[in-house]
Amino acid sequence: MKVRVYVTLKEGILDPQGKAVKHSLNTLGYSAVEDVRIGKYIELNLNNNSIDKLDFQIKEMCNKLLANTIIEDFRYEIEK
Amino acid sequence: MKVRVYVTLKEGILDPQGKAVKHSLNTLGYSAVEDVRIGKYIELNLNNNSIDKLDFQIKEMCNKLLANTIIEDFRYEIEK
Repeated sequence: MKVRVYVTLKEGILDPQGKAVKHSLNTLGYSAVEDVRIGKYIELNLNNNSIDKLDFQIKEMCNKLLANTIIEDFRYEIEK
Repeated sequence: MKVRVYVTLKEGILDPQGKAVKHSLNTLGYSAVEDVRIGKYIELNLNNNSIDKLDFQIKEMCNKLLANTIIEDFRYEIEK
């Protein structure tokens, strides 16, 4: 079973990496780019076939390790 | 207009960061986690309302700056 987790900075948190990429894109001539935010994309492969506790487990993994919930949000998709 | 870009390591390319996260998840007790791959998730805000050349432009941005196409793949979604 595959789970895709997206971790993004919360709104209002400064994203210097995104700012640098925006600046580079503008310099390369892509003047239409107004804002860039950079996050993480994490693919998990699980051998767990019981979906019972899966939601709970994924949230727990994100809260404990994958995301820093003080400054980051996460969302996920489960591919069956 | 918002564009979401997903940059992932190509299959076969080693992902030490993913390996470290997998190991940490296993150590935390999530033994069902068999593999972890870590990529980038990039949100672009564009003020360009013409969709004519948009596909072409996004591919160009990815090839030039956002992804290293020797070791990484990318895909994107356009949110209208």
